[in-house]
Amino acid sequence: MVVVMKGNAAPGDVDTIVSVVTGVGGAAFVSRGTTRTIVGLVGDVALFQTLNLGALPGVLDVIRISQPFKLVSRESHPVPSTVYVGGVPIGPDTATLIAGPCAVETPEQTLAAAWMAKRAGASLLRGGAYKPRTSPYAFQGLGEAGLKILAEVRDEVGLPVVTEVVEASDVDLVASYADMLQIGTRNMQNFSLLQAAGSCGRPVLLKRGLQATVEEWLMAAEYIAQRGNLSIVLCERGIRTFETATRNTLDVSAVPVVHALSHLPVIVDPSHAGGRRDLVVPLARAALAAGADGVIVDVHPHPETALCDGPQALMDDDLALLAEAMATIPPLLGRKPATP
Amino acid sequence: MVVVMKGNAAPGDVDTIVSVVTGVGGAAFVSRGTTRTIVGLVGDVALFQTLNLGALPGVLDVIRISQPFKLVSRESHPVPSTVYVGGVPIGPDTATLIAGPCAVETPEQTLAAAWMAKRAGASLLRGGAYKPRTSPYAFQGLGEAGLKILAEVRDEVGLPVVTEVVEASDVDLVASYADMLQIGTRNMQNFSLLQAAGSCGRPVLLKRGLQATVEEWLMAAEYIAQRGNLSIVLCERGIRTFETATRNTLDVSAVPVVHALSHLPVIVDPSHAGGRRDLVVPLARAALAAGADGVIVDVHPHPETALCDGPQALMDDDLALLAEAMATIPPLLGRKPATP
Amino acid sequence: MVVVMKGNAAPGDVDTIVSVVTGVGGAAFVSRGTTRTIVGLVGDVALFQTLNLGALPGVLDVIRISQPFKLVSRESHPVPSTVYVGGVPIGPDTATLIAGPCAVETPEQTLAAAWMAKRAGASLLRGGAYKPRTSPYAFQGLGEAGLKILAEVRDEVGLPVVTEVVEASDVDLVASYADMLQIGTRNMQNFSLLQAAGSCGRPVLLKRGLQATVEEWLMAAEYIAQRGNLSIVLCERGIRTFETATRNTLDVSAVPVVHALSHLPVIVDPSHAGGRRDLVVPLARAALAAGADGVIVDVHPHPETALCDGPQALMDDDLALLAEAMATIPPLLGRKPATP
Amino acid sequence: MVVVMKGNAAPGDVDTIVSVVTGVGGAAFVSRGTTRTIVGLVGDVALFQTLNLGALPGVLDVIRISQPFKLVSRESHPVPSTVYVGGVPIGPDTATLIAGPCAVETPEQTLAAAWMAKRAGASLLRGGAYKPRTSPYAFQGLGEAGLKILAEVRDEVGLPVVTEVVEASDVDLVASYADMLQIGTRNMQNFSLLQAAGSCGRPVLLKRGLQATVEEWLMAAEYIAQRGNLSIVLCERGIRTFETATRNTLDVSAVPVVHALSHLPVIVDPSHAGGRRDLVVPLARAALAAGADGVIVDVHPHPETALCDGPQALMDDDLALLAEAMATIPPLLGRKPATP
Repeated sequence: MVVVMKGNAAPGDVDTIVSVVTGVGGAAFVSRGTTRTIVGLVGDVALFQTLNLGALPGVLDVIRISQPFKLVSRESHPVPSTVYVGGVPIGPDTATLIAGPCAVETPEQTLAAAWMAKRAGASLLRGGAYKPRTSPYAFQGLGEAGLKILAEVRDEVGLPVVTEVVEASDVDLVASYADMLQIGTRNMQNFSLLQAAGSCGRPVLLKRGLQATVEEWLMAAEYIAQRGNLSIVLCERGIRTFETATRNTLDVSAVPVVHALSHLPVIVDPSHAGGRRDLVVPLARAALAAGADGVIVDVHPHPETALCDGPQALMDDDLALLAEAMATIPPLLGRKPATP
Repeated sequence: MVVVMKGNAAPGDVDTIVSVVTGVGGAAFVSRGTTRTIVGLVGDVALFQTLNLGALPGVLDVIRISQPFKLVSRESHPVPSTVYVGGVPIGPDTATLIAGPCAVETPEQTLAAAWMAKRAGASLLRGGAYKPRTSPYAFQGLGEAGLKILAEVRDEVGLPVVTEVVEASDVDLVASYADMLQIGTRNMQNFSLLQAAGSCGRPVLLKRGLQATVEEWLMAAEYIAQRGNLSIVLCERGIRTFETATRNTLDVSAVPVVHALSHLPVIVDPSHAGGRRDLVVPLARAALAAGADGVIVDVHPHPETALCDGPQALMDDDLALLAEAMATIPPLLGRKPATP
Repeated sequence: MVVVMKGNAAPGDVDTIVSVVTGVGGAAFVSRGTTRTIVGLVGDVALFQTLNLGALPGVLDVIRISQPFKLVSRESHPVPSTVYVGGVPIGPDTATLIAGPCAVETPEQTLAAAWMAKRAGASLLRGGAYKPRTSPYAFQGLGEAGLKILAEVRDEVGLPVVTEVVEASDVDLVASYADMLQIGTRNMQNFSLLQAAGSCGRPVLLKRGLQATVEEWLMAAEYIAQRGNLSIVLCERGIRTFETATRNTLDVSAVPVVHALSHLPVIVDPSHAGGRRDLVVPLARAALAAGADGVIVDVHPHPETALCDGPQALMDDDLALLAEAMATIPPLLGRKPATP
Repeated sequence: MVVVMKGNAAPGDVDTIVSVVTGVGGAAFVSRGTTRTIVGLVGDVALFQTLNLGALPGVLDVIRISQPFKLVSRESHPVPSTVYVGGVPIGPDTATLIAGPCAVETPEQTLAAAWMAKRAGASLLRGGAYKPRTSPYAFQGLGEAGLKILAEVRDEVGLPVVTEVVEASDVDLVASYADMLQIGTRNMQNFSLLQAAGSCGRPVLLKRGLQATVEEWLMAAEYIAQRGNLSIVLCERGIRTFETATRNTLDVSAVPVVHALSHLPVIVDPSHAGGRRDLVVPLARAALAAGADGVIVDVHPHPETALCDGPQALMDDDLALLAEAMATIPPLLGRKPATP
């Protein structure tokens, strides 16, 4: 950390910083400039943070220069990780397609969507039994009945299942049915849920919060990792900006940025990012070309009657284009399709 | 709702809309323009939303023109509400000051902060026993031990207590100690928690999410109201923008905007919005002048050792200025200080 | 400045920094930490910036710790400035009301609006003859004919005139009619225009760009100041955020933030910030309570026929409320109404 | 347009709307709903906009349902356009690489950068002689001397030149040297400049404003088109969001969104979007995969001494990767490299 003093700081103010820091076993190096003095701190940053140096007299700013995440950082673990979901890899050597309906509505709809997904080359099935919805008047999901449908469809179609969990007390139940637990964008900083997911024994798909910086997202992953679970896949799904032409703004830069900061895989959800069917394939292509470890998309056999996010669900024609993108772009980056 | 057709929509596309809408008991009025046709829908909007009209052929856009919230809307309840917390009113006739430490650390610190709050004219005590923190390595609060401290300090100082709850399963425990439950910014869309708070029998302080629109915030309040609890106070605490000079950007317009849309009271948290002590009093003044029903601020007897948000905690000198603002600005708008 | 080295920087990388910095006459202080080394630089920051230190091997980041603006900074000029416009002060001792039509349409409309402004206590008249509009199909202003109308109305009503200039080559013409030149939000970084305004011999009202940080805004003011013109008044008018309930989000915090960083006065435009008549008076109150040196509002005798921004123009009833706010809030902060 | 009435609008309020609209030759269709009445307007939208319907009594909102841009819209011109720059196409059949130094510094640096660009497969040379800079203390470009260097380098290397113009009065001068004029992000709403560019006889590269919606960007293009110049290429270069890990956030969705709304080509600038060398190639790949008609990048023979944006300039190794992306991704979308 670096402590920046105000231009009019008293000489004693710098002395106070030095004595406080050395008092907890750190070292402080003072650089006196023409307009400001700065103090570089050497030692345990976590310890320094409890000192509340910013509140001491004469201090203008305290600048953190190391990353606050540890277990998920690339510095701690330089080789990119591969996470396995029911035997299917998500990592640096592959590009994984996850597809399925936004919400599980009926056995028939889920089964039809799963076959659509499989035909398009998906190796994992997505589908929501618990749906966090902005409106209390919107469809909230089938709950455990939906989990049962997903498990039956998995047995019939042969695709491991990714499904969302919205509350810490549901984690064990969902983990008993699913191969991977999804933590949704609204729950990215639901810390109880993150901690429960850290102990669940299943891989976790952690969506980025609508308003979360990459650093906050990695800190949320750190909550999971801290409980012993490093099988975490990050999912970029669009951030909130002033632009209204798309539902959210896909932050495609997040893919290389996360890869530079963390060893965890990162995939992209072009369906929720754009919110429009016509954008899904172009955004999926962009994500793959930027180096994403996979994409996750909504499919629905009858989007016009979907209970959730019908306007963005892919149909068979779109899936053929997506399959083509999965087959041609990842190989340019040395990746092959993910198969169990 | 209004359905806007594409310029190249087929005549049959409009007929489909009309028949789908009338099929569920609605009425559809077609206006054929020179470049576009629009269809106005009359009937039950919730029903129309399940029709997924946007996915029908020839449809460019579906525009909602009524508000999605009901119980909390001003249309449904034209008179502004007053919420009582341990007998203290928050509503249109008063300006209520809530003050206390960001986090409960020790009995001594909490008691000292409570006396500071009381001397400054606060009629409610804030203080966190459960602290949702971005980093898993930061102080997470004392939990139930902190609740006990708050209850003891309330008995000694005589200020009813507002404290945060972060998980649905903790709601009953927190409600057994506190006079008002706070739902924090990161949990504004934790729908399980909102529903639990809707059944807790205590008034709820609902902070706005960091990147929540006013509409989403009111929809979150609707989740609470739907379970029968209309004792809800909204709290604007800054939104996330591109500006980095302040921690967040206080959206002071939210005060009159909420008052126009909802009958619920709205207060402002200038401490968390700005994140800097020197901004707290100016922003509190602005909030009161914009018509806020109260303000909530951090105070700490020793900010330089605070375990949480020390740089924004007020000290005695600031509190004197804040007390002066509370005494002079609300009367200009016909409000008096809140007392039990 | 502080240079932060990567964790895996080679020892020679630090030596390179030191030799480059000392090579231009600076001094470099090296602090070797457990995970990183940092180098504090002492000397001429402008010189260091040309060194492009961030591109040298082993460098993670270069952190600037002093402010990039000089002439407009409060560090360089600790006493708040007062700017005089046709004899009317805008500064720390007063609260100045500027009012008038968004656009000059006719002599009658301008005159009627000016009398409305004067009756409400305004001491300066605003009105646009050149209107930068998003659409090329919208009313673009009357040009010089509008300037003549403003000059005639000034003579009749006795209020000095503030009007916008949109192009460097028009500065002299506009300055020949107006008492203060306004640079609008879309031109905040039109550097040719800023430089021309710096040489025009008139005070300048510099509106904040829709998505400009406070620092960029002050840098734009620095462009004007650098040409010798320090009669600059800053105007906060709302920034662009994700919120759609208001046209823009008034950043009321900008008032105390600017006052802490700069000696220049700062006023607020609540009409353009909110874009809704019902928000103008509450936001004006908030601005005054936050310590603004004045407010600037749209008035129109017949808003329903206004060629520009009619929905936000105040009418006589609103003006009475605004006059009351001007009379009661500034005195709480030791300010008196501005009169020539 | 659709006029939405307030819930409590008086019956006569609707009648007023109808009579005002029919008074100017339009037609109005009234749909009376259970909670609201809406009025659909049919006729000339530009005319309706001057009516200021939003200011009439009882009106809640006026919703525009047609696009405000005409000449640049895809509705008016369904076939995607190709723009030729010195004989080099930018359009739907090709992917064009534009490369060169951010700023022209010396003949030697510009020439070396141009050869780097050409070796990497660029068919157009970029380079700035006029540099709009946030700080008045930063390098502002060589002006006409820089234009001369660019012209000489064009003659030697054989690449047509794209260069920025920052002021309406410079348009003719710049057009006399350059093959394409660039209007930069800060000038996207400098309407005088747009109009001058509309009459210059050269193709125009119009960068998106940092804070501009896609609609505003297309309206800026409409200003150019309105003066008779339809040789416009749009350039997405990152928008301003809350994320700080990248300088700006590349809005890659803008590529398919613009293609759906407009017939104009759209290219992407990954250098300025990310602001970091390591992100340029991944973002260029993403842009090409999303269907961009080209990319524009910074190259510099010696980034560590560049006077402008050195940290993002590509060097030879990066250029080899970029050339590979240009050769492999566009063919997947049916495009071939652009050559004169």
